[in-house]
Amino acid sequence: MTTQTITSSDIILTGDRTTGPLHLGHYVGSLKRRVELQHVCRQFLLLADAQALTDNMGNYLKVRENVLQVALDYLAVGIDPEKSVIFIQSLVPELTELSSYYLNLVTVARLERNPTIKDEIKLRGFERDIPAGFLTYPAAQAADITAFKATIVPVGADQIPMIEQTNEIVRRFNASVSRDILVEARAVVPEQGARLPGFDGKAKMSKSLGNALPLSACADEISHAVRMMYTDPNHLRVSDPGQVEGNVVFTYLDVFDEDAERVAELKAHYQRGGLGDTVIKRHLEGILQELLAPVRARREAFAKDPQAVMDMLKRGTEKAREAAAVTLAEVKGAMGLNYF
Amino acid sequence: MTTQTITSSDIILTGDRTTGPLHLGHYVGSLKRRVELQHVCRQFLLLADAQALTDNMGNYLKVRENVLQVALDYLAVGIDPEKSVIFIQSLVPELTELSSYYLNLVTVARLERNPTIKDEIKLRGFERDIPAGFLTYPAAQAADITAFKATIVPVGADQIPMIEQTNEIVRRFNASVSRDILVEARAVVPEQGARLPGFDGKAKMSKSLGNALPLSACADEISHAVRMMYTDPNHLRVSDPGQVEGNVVFTYLDVFDEDAERVAELKAHYQRGGLGDTVIKRHLEGILQELLAPVRARREAFAKDPQAVMDMLKRGTEKAREAAAVTLAEVKGAMGLNYF
Repeated sequence: MTTQTITSSDIILTGDRTTGPLHLGHYVGSLKRRVELQHVCRQFLLLADAQALTDNMGNYLKVRENVLQVALDYLAVGIDPEKSVIFIQSLVPELTELSSYYLNLVTVARLERNPTIKDEIKLRGFERDIPAGFLTYPAAQAADITAFKATIVPVGADQIPMIEQTNEIVRRFNASVSRDILVEARAVVPEQGARLPGFDGKAKMSKSLGNALPLSACADEISHAVRMMYTDPNHLRVSDPGQVEGNVVFTYLDVFDEDAERVAELKAHYQRGGLGDTVIKRHLEGILQELLAPVRARREAFAKDPQAVMDMLKRGTEKAREAAAVTLAEVKGAMGLNYF
Repeated sequence: MTTQTITSSDIILTGDRTTGPLHLGHYVGSLKRRVELQHVCRQFLLLADAQALTDNMGNYLKVRENVLQVALDYLAVGIDPEKSVIFIQSLVPELTELSSYYLNLVTVARLERNPTIKDEIKLRGFERDIPAGFLTYPAAQAADITAFKATIVPVGADQIPMIEQTNEIVRRFNASVSRDILVEARAVVPEQGARLPGFDGKAKMSKSLGNALPLSACADEISHAVRMMYTDPNHLRVSDPGQVEGNVVFTYLDVFDEDAERVAELKAHYQRGGLGDTVIKRHLEGILQELLAPVRARREAFAKDPQAVMDMLKRGTEKAREAAAVTLAEVKGAMGLNYF
């Protein structure tokens, strides 16, 4: 994702499902960039509790409690609610209204062909028992994006088909009313390396895989995670030559150590032998402790006054509703559903 | 449908898609009974513009204009907006919110197995290009019904699976929150004979088949319709014996002539021969003219002041929103989506 292509007239829509606190993978993949981008253009950050429910009906407490947890994570990494509009999805009913009309603009066959949906259905083992709300969530996502006339949606490469689906809906709606009311969005995919592997070496850092370092991790958790970190299983003695590829410590150093020259030296040393895992792990741990200490401190400070955080979310939600209401009025007006 | 089983504590939800003015078939099948039932219990009448859009995206003018036309039909037959809450579906956003959660409680496979949906998909020739909003409309209908805690939904026999689907959603939701918040509804099917054939003898009276007599029909249209009416194609001479079964004039007399004895005599006479089509048609026409003249007069009177009708719809819509908002608050509260 290159900031250059994003200008002050852009509008960003992004967010997170509220199914668990955020971790270092989120920081690298999106949060860090959001902190930068909030100074560039308008940014709406969605706490997607309603979307979380599409496959969490019954897990109400989890979805609710993580609204506050994710908000704390946002504030902890430096997202500024005066710059970014942070809001709760379920409290913006305009989104479900838009979504209900968009459902008429997309066929069931088209939804079933959506590669992202196909993958996620497989991942969740839904087979034929897909909740309808899960199959149709591209229409809900189109509502999230278009309600704010977002021009930029930062997504993983696997999510690109979702943005294409949104833009199809945009074009169909505009054609049906012969006016350009909705705005197409551009998927912006993070640069290579923005996806952090789990500390066990698995491709994805994920709370459910138990290989994630939450942003709220205390010093001991960070130590523990680095100690557990996957390196080179054949690097048995310090003097042995070690492998750098797939070695999570070096993957992390590539991401977190700002001194690229030093990382290159460490890699070379490790490859020729004589550099122990303990040394590189201690080095990485120092960097991670330094990175996360202020995040944790800010998070703890905000967590002391959850009411203030909820008040901030209330204000953000009001701003989001205002923006979404404008779009909804235009959409319904164009369809003639403005009777009074 | 027997009024005896409906008591003052019941709540009725019913309504019409706003795709065209209503006709004599609607009068016999539902409107007449609504006029009676509004004195028995609370009744919500839905002008289903949003549902009409599920297969009418782009036909916005048609859907919009028929909101007023259907409202005029309601008033013309004697539905009293002080007794029945008449409201516009698209102006009650609480319905789309409820619907969005209900979508998570029903699987795609279950929707595809719904016999009503299957038939209607076939009828519309959708095949695999079913708009998602059309497949998922049972969830929207469940929202319409449950928002008002309706206990009674008058439907045709073909719509019974829709009410079963609603009740499944009700049970699933209540189980998921371990509380009885939503209320199951009972499908009430009109008695035999409540479905009026078209005047061409086809099973269903329908505007699109061109065999319908609109409630706003003028005297000439009524004459013409009766003249065109299908009788017994083998009844060539007055003296010939004629057939009563499938003879639309007699089907209509069974429904509209309150003097059952006289109808029995006419049938006997027609069957043994000596009774001409002209005579029975003149008799039926007299009855229909008498039935529809005051309906037409009332319709014309109300149509003179469309603003007053729209004001009435506005008040009805406000009442509907109030009722739906109570249910929505309970539903979202039970799911924990009440943050502030």
